[in-house]
Amino acid sequence: MNSPHLKIIPLGGLGEIGLNMMVVEYGETLIIVDAGLMFPEEDMLGIDIVIPDFTYLRENRDRIQALIVTHGHEDHIGAIPFFLREFQVPVYATPLTLALISEKLREHNLLQWSRLVRVLPRETIRIEPFEIEFIQVCHSIPDGVGLAIRTPAGVLVHSGDFKIDNTPIDGRRCDLARFAAYGEEGVLALLSDSTNVEREGYTLSEREIGRTLREIFRECPGRIVVAVFASNIHRIQQVVDIAREFDRKVFLNGKSMVANIRIARELGYIDFDPDEEIFLPDIQKLPDSQVLMLTTGTQGEPFSALTRMAFNVHRKLKVQPGDTIILSSKFIPGNERAIHNIINNLYRQGAEVIHEQVKDIHVSGHAYREELKLLINLVKPKYFIPIHGEFRHLVKHRQLAAATGIPPERCVVAENGNIIHFMPEGTVVEKGVEAGRVFVDGKGVGDVGDLVLRDRRHLSEDGMVIASLVLSKETLEILNGPDLISRGFILEETKPEILDGAKCVVLEVLDRFISDSAVWDCADFQMEIRRELKRFFQRVLERRPFIYPIVVEI
Amino acid sequence: MNSPHLKIIPLGGLGEIGLNMMVVEYGETLIIVDAGLMFPEEDMLGIDIVIPDFTYLRENRDRIQALIVTHGHEDHIGAIPFFLREFQVPVYATPLTLALISEKLREHNLLQWSRLVRVLPRETIRIEPFEIEFIQVCHSIPDGVGLAIRTPAGVLVHSGDFKIDNTPIDGRRCDLARFAAYGEEGVLALLSDSTNVEREGYTLSEREIGRTLREIFRECPGRIVVAVFASNIHRIQQVVDIAREFDRKVFLNGKSMVANIRIARELGYIDFDPDEEIFLPDIQKLPDSQVLMLTTGTQGEPFSALTRMAFNVHRKLKVQPGDTIILSSKFIPGNERAIHNIINNLYRQGAEVIHEQVKDIHVSGHAYREELKLLINLVKPKYFIPIHGEFRHLVKHRQLAAATGIPPERCVVAENGNIIHFMPEGTVVEKGVEAGRVFVDGKGVGDVGDLVLRDRRHLSEDGMVIASLVLSKETLEILNGPDLISRGFILEETKPEILDGAKCVVLEVLDRFISDSAVWDCADFQMEIRRELKRFFQRVLERRPFIYPIVVEI
Repeated sequence: MNSPHLKIIPLGGLGEIGLNMMVVEYGETLIIVDAGLMFPEEDMLGIDIVIPDFTYLRENRDRIQALIVTHGHEDHIGAIPFFLREFQVPVYATPLTLALISEKLREHNLLQWSRLVRVLPRETIRIEPFEIEFIQVCHSIPDGVGLAIRTPAGVLVHSGDFKIDNTPIDGRRCDLARFAAYGEEGVLALLSDSTNVEREGYTLSEREIGRTLREIFRECPGRIVVAVFASNIHRIQQVVDIAREFDRKVFLNGKSMVANIRIARELGYIDFDPDEEIFLPDIQKLPDSQVLMLTTGTQGEPFSALTRMAFNVHRKLKVQPGDTIILSSKFIPGNERAIHNIINNLYRQGAEVIHEQVKDIHVSGHAYREELKLLINLVKPKYFIPIHGEFRHLVKHRQLAAATGIPPERCVVAENGNIIHFMPEGTVVEKGVEAGRVFVDGKGVGDVGDLVLRDRRHLSEDGMVIASLVLSKETLEILNGPDLISRGFILEETKPEILDGAKCVVLEVLDRFISDSAVWDCADFQMEIRRELKRFFQRVLERRPFIYPIVVEI
Repeated sequence: MNSPHLKIIPLGGLGEIGLNMMVVEYGETLIIVDAGLMFPEEDMLGIDIVIPDFTYLRENRDRIQALIVTHGHEDHIGAIPFFLREFQVPVYATPLTLALISEKLREHNLLQWSRLVRVLPRETIRIEPFEIEFIQVCHSIPDGVGLAIRTPAGVLVHSGDFKIDNTPIDGRRCDLARFAAYGEEGVLALLSDSTNVEREGYTLSEREIGRTLREIFRECPGRIVVAVFASNIHRIQQVVDIAREFDRKVFLNGKSMVANIRIARELGYIDFDPDEEIFLPDIQKLPDSQVLMLTTGTQGEPFSALTRMAFNVHRKLKVQPGDTIILSSKFIPGNERAIHNIINNLYRQGAEVIHEQVKDIHVSGHAYREELKLLINLVKPKYFIPIHGEFRHLVKHRQLAAATGIPPERCVVAENGNIIHFMPEGTVVEKGVEAGRVFVDGKGVGDVGDLVLRDRRHLSEDGMVIASLVLSKETLEILNGPDLISRGFILEETKPEILDGAKCVVLEVLDRFISDSAVWDCADFQMEIRRELKRFFQRVLERRPFIYPIVVEI
C-alpha cells in the first residue's frame, strides 16, 4: 500500500455524535473536512469541551492543504480555533458558515491570522490533485453543503449533515440534481449522515412547524417566549414572520441569539426588520399580547436566560402567570433532567409550557431512512461509508445501504482512527492512526486525561479525607496532629465520632509501626495509614473516600 | 383548624417521580400509603438511594397505625426498611407486594421484627376511624391496587399506579366496578397517578407486546436475549410463553431476575415450568436457535450482566454474532447515554439490538390521558388531587380534571410537605411539614447533606490542590515544604510548571506576611494562600480546584 492512493481517515464523528473531522488524502496532499467539537458526556467531569486528537495531523503537518467546512454547527466548526492555532491552512466554507467561524476566531484572537475562503454552492475549488464541488443541502442551519471530491481514484460524495426538505423556508432546496449528476457519472464512494437512520419515513418539512406555532399563537393572549437554537435561522424566521402576523414585537434574549441574528441580517439570511425588534426596557411598556421573546437555553444550560427565568433569578426578566413558553427544539439525551427541571419551574412561576414531547414543534435536520435511501439511489456509489453517528447508527446505515442494493461487502463500517485505503483491488480498512478525544478544561488543552478524570470521579463519589501528622525525625514523637480533615465525605457534626475514630486509627498504626518495624519507613507508614483508614471507613460507613496521608518528619 | 378533621400530607412523590409516601390522618389516627425510594439524580454525587424525610412521622410517632402499600415497585416500597427500623407498625399489602417487601426486609435483617398483613383485592381492613378497601388495578407489576379509604369526612380514592388494560396477561382487570360503586356512593377526593398525563389516548395493552416479540422470534435464528425489568412478571410471562412456542429454553440472568421468578412461582403468579429453564453450563450444549436469555440491566446499570456482556467483561457469557438482543423497557431519562453505550457495544460484538426507540416492544404501566379521564368520570369526586408526578404533571392533570368537569377550585395541586385540610367549608392547603429528600450513602442515612454534595460537586469539577508547609513557631523559618499535591486537577507531567509556580506563590505569600504583618496570624496566612493560589490557577488555567492549605507551626 505504498504507491500513492486514496485514503480516508476519520478522526472524529464515526462511532459518536459530534466531533466531526475527516482526512481525505492522496499522495502528498491532505485535506480535512470539518473540525467539530463535542460537548462533554456526564462522566467527563469538569470538562468544558472535547476536541479531536490532532496527532495524525501533527505528523503530517506539511501535507495539509485545506480545511473544508460543511456547515456552521459546533460539532463541525467548534474545534477550528484549536486547529488553526496549530495548522495555518486556508478554510473553505459558504458565507454563513464562514461568518460563524469568523465570530469564533475573533473570540480566540485568531481572526487576523486566518485565511478564510468563501465558496458558494455549485462552485468548485481545486486543491491538487482534488477538485471539490460544494452541493447545497437542507439542514437545521442555513448554508449547509455536501461535497463532491474528485480524486484521481474517483469521485467521493460526502453528504454533510443533510435532510431533504421540499418546501424549505429560504427556498434553497437540497441540490438533488448535482447528486444525481455525479451518480450518473459514477461515484467511487458515498459518505452519508447516519444520525437518524433509526427513524422510519421522511422528516417533516421545517415549514410544518410554522403551522403548529401559528395555532399556538392564535390561542395565547399573554406573552409568548420561544426557545430555540440560535443557529436555527429558519425556525427563527418563521417565529418572526408569525410574530409579525400577530402584531407582536420581538425581544432577542441571549448572547448567541443576538450575535446570530446580527450575522444573518448582515448576510441577508433573515428577513427581520429592526423596527420589529424591541429591547428590554420596552417589554413592560407593551401589552402582554404584543410581546414575543426569542431565547436560547433550550437544553437547560445552567446560566442561560431561560434557566434564570425559570428559577426566578433573572435580574430583569420575570416569568408571569399567563406566559406561554415554547421549547422549539429536541431534548438532547443527557439533558432531559435539566430540561424537565426548567419546565417544572416555569409551571411553578405560573407559565404554560409547550415542548416537543407534547406537541409537534420541532423537526429534525437530519434525513430519515427514506431520505437516506433516496440519496444512495441517486448517487449510486461503488462503496458506501456511513458517517456521523454512534456505532449502532453506522451498522444500521450499512444495513440500509445493503438493502438498497449496494453489495454488503462494499458497505464499509469504519471508526475513528481507521484508514480506509482505496486500492485498485478494493478497499482495505486498517487500524492505525491515533484518534480520540482531547479534553479542554479552562485554558488547558489535553492536560486533563483519563487519570485525572478517574480521580475526579473518585472524589465526586465519596469526597476526600486528609490525615496530617508531624513527627520528630529522631524520636518519632508526635510534634503535631494527627489532624483529620474531610471534604465531600460526611456532614461532620452529624457523626463527630467518625473522624475521631479515624484519628485513633492513625495513632494505632503509628504505635504498631514504632513497636513492630525493624526499620522505620515513612512511605510504608503512609501506605498503612491509607489502608487502615480505608478499611475503617468501609466498615463504619461503607464509603471509600479519597484518603491522603501527609506525614512530615522534622 | 383544631377540631379533628381529615388531613392528607404528602411526604414524597408530589412534585417528583419516585419517593412516594403519603400520610392520611384523622384525629388521633395516622396511616401511611407507600414508602418509596428514588434513585439519585445526576447531581447527587455518590448517593446510593434517596428516601423521604421522616421528620413529621417522628413527631407523631405514637399515632401511626399502619403502612399500606399499593404495589411492589421500588418507588413505593424501597424506603420500607428505613421506615420500619424506626416505626414498628403493621404493613398491609397484596401477596406479591408483601413477598417483595419480605425479600427486602430479609436483606436488612428486619423480617423477624416486622408485622406483615396480607390483604386481597376487594378485602377491607379497619383501622379506626378508617376503613380501607383494596381495589385491583393493572400496572407493570402484578398485584397492584388502588385504595378506597373511608373516613369520617368521606371517602378518599387513591389510584395507586395504574393503567386500564382490558386484556391483561393474568386476566386480572382493573376493577372499574369498585371505582364506579364508590363514585355512585359519593367520593370526597380522588388522588390519581399523573405520570403519563402528557400522553394522549390510551396505553396499549401489555398483550400487544407479545405480538411484536413473536414476530421478532420468528425471524431470529440465533440466540435471543430479552432484557426486562425483573418485576415485570407479565412481560416475562409473555417471553416465556413465546419461548415455549419457539422451542427455546430460558436462562435467567441476574440476581433480581432469579429472585423475582422464584417468588412469582411460589405464589403462582407465573406459569413457567422448571424444565423450561436452563442453567449456565447448558447454554453451550444447545443450538443457538433454542436459547433464550432473560436478563436485567435495561437501564445500563454499570454492574448488570447485560452491561458486562456488552463490554465483553462477563466471565461466562459472551455476545456472539447472530445474537439478537431485545431491550423491552423504557429508556428512563437520565439513563439514555448509558443505554446507548450498551447498544453500541453490543453491535460491536456483532449482535443485533432491538429497542423501544425502533420497535414497539414496550408499553407503559401508567394510564394515558383518556384513561385518566375515565377514572375521574367513574369516581366523580368532589375534590381532585393529582399525585405521582413532577410539578408539570400535577398541573396538567389538574387541567385535565377541570376539563373533565371537576370545578377548577376543587382541583388541588399540592406538593410534598403541604397539609391538605378537609374542613366542612372546603379544603385548605397549608405549608407546614418538613419534607424532602434524605440521602443514603453506604451505611449512612442523612449524614450527607447539601453541603457535602456541594463539596463533591466542586471536587468533581476541578479536583483539589493541597499545599502543606511546616514552620518554626518561633522564627517562622520553613522546616518542611511547601509541598503541593493535586488530584483530579491536572496531569502533572504535562505541565510541571503549574505546581512549581504554585509553590512560588506560597513562598511569596509567606515572605509578604513575614515582612508586612505586625502580628503573625496563621489562620490569615492560610486564607491568603488559598486566595492567591485561587487567583494563580484561575489566571494560568481558568480552573478553580478545591484548595486546602495545611500550615503547621512547631
